[in-house]
Parts: sequence; structure tokens; C-alpha cells
Amino acid sequence: MDNLEKYRQIIRQILTPYVNISYSNVKIRNRAAFDRETDQYLIISEGWNNQEHLHSCLIHVEIINHKIWIQCDNT
Amino acid sequence: MDNLEKYRQIIRQILTPYVNISYSNVKIRNRAAFDRETDQYLIISEGWNNQEHLHSCLIHVEIINHKIWIQCDNT
Repeated sequence: MDNLEKYRQIIRQILTPYVNISYSNVKIRNRAAFDRETDQYLIISEGWNNQEHLHSCLIHVEIINHKIWIQCDNT
Repeated sequence: MDNLEKYRQIIRQILTPYVNISYSNVKIRNRAAFDRETDQYLIISEGWNNQEHLHSCLIHVEIINHKIWIQCDNT
């Protein structure tokens, strides 16, 4: 397996557990959006805190020219 | 083609052109993250405005139980 494929696997392995995190007090659910064509890997948090709609990027990892870039990290 | 597959195609067709939008003044690039396993479809804007790092969700569409949800829309 080449490095690029290894990177993709490792990113998936590290990010996937975030989908199962549950939060107290707020009704938030994490979603994974993994796109291997564009090499974008995101966990998005979405839900409600009473009447307030919450939507944010928990983490966004990108592979550019065989290098891993952390574009956003709110973990 | 069933409805779900049609929805996926339509969402891709509508969102993909956002990747090619260029912005004046700021060095921002839009990325598509389309995940058909989780049915998450996002366009993420990332880049720089002078020294300031910019990262935001331009649009986030999700298919839940054969219905389309717009989770975030900053278009």
C-alpha cells in the first residue's frame, strides 16, 4: 500500500470515533463526510441547544500533494 | 433510477460549481466534500485574508430518510 492510501486509512481511523461521541445538555450529532476523490475528511457537529441551532466544523483534514493538512481543529 | 439516487445527483450538480468560484481580495478556495455513504454534501471555504486564516462552511446538505436537509447555507 502506498503512503497516500495509508494516510487515507489513518485519517479515517482517527476521525470515525468522533461520530459516536454524545454530548450532555445539547442535542448534537456528529457526522462524517469523507471524500476520497477530493481527499477531504470532515467531522461536522450539528444539532440544537434549546431553540438555538448549532452547526460547526469539529475537524477538517485534507491531503494535498501527499501531505496532511489540518484545516480546522475544534476537538 | 430511484429518488434517492436522483437527489444525490441533483445535489452534486448544484454544489459542484461552487468549487470554481474565485474571490477578489482574499485567497480563498472552495472544496467539495461529498460522502455518499453518509449522504453528507459540503462545500468548505478555506484560505487567507492577509494574516487571518479563514475557514467556514459555505453549504451543507444532508439526506436523511430520503429527505433533503439544508444544515448550513452561507451561499
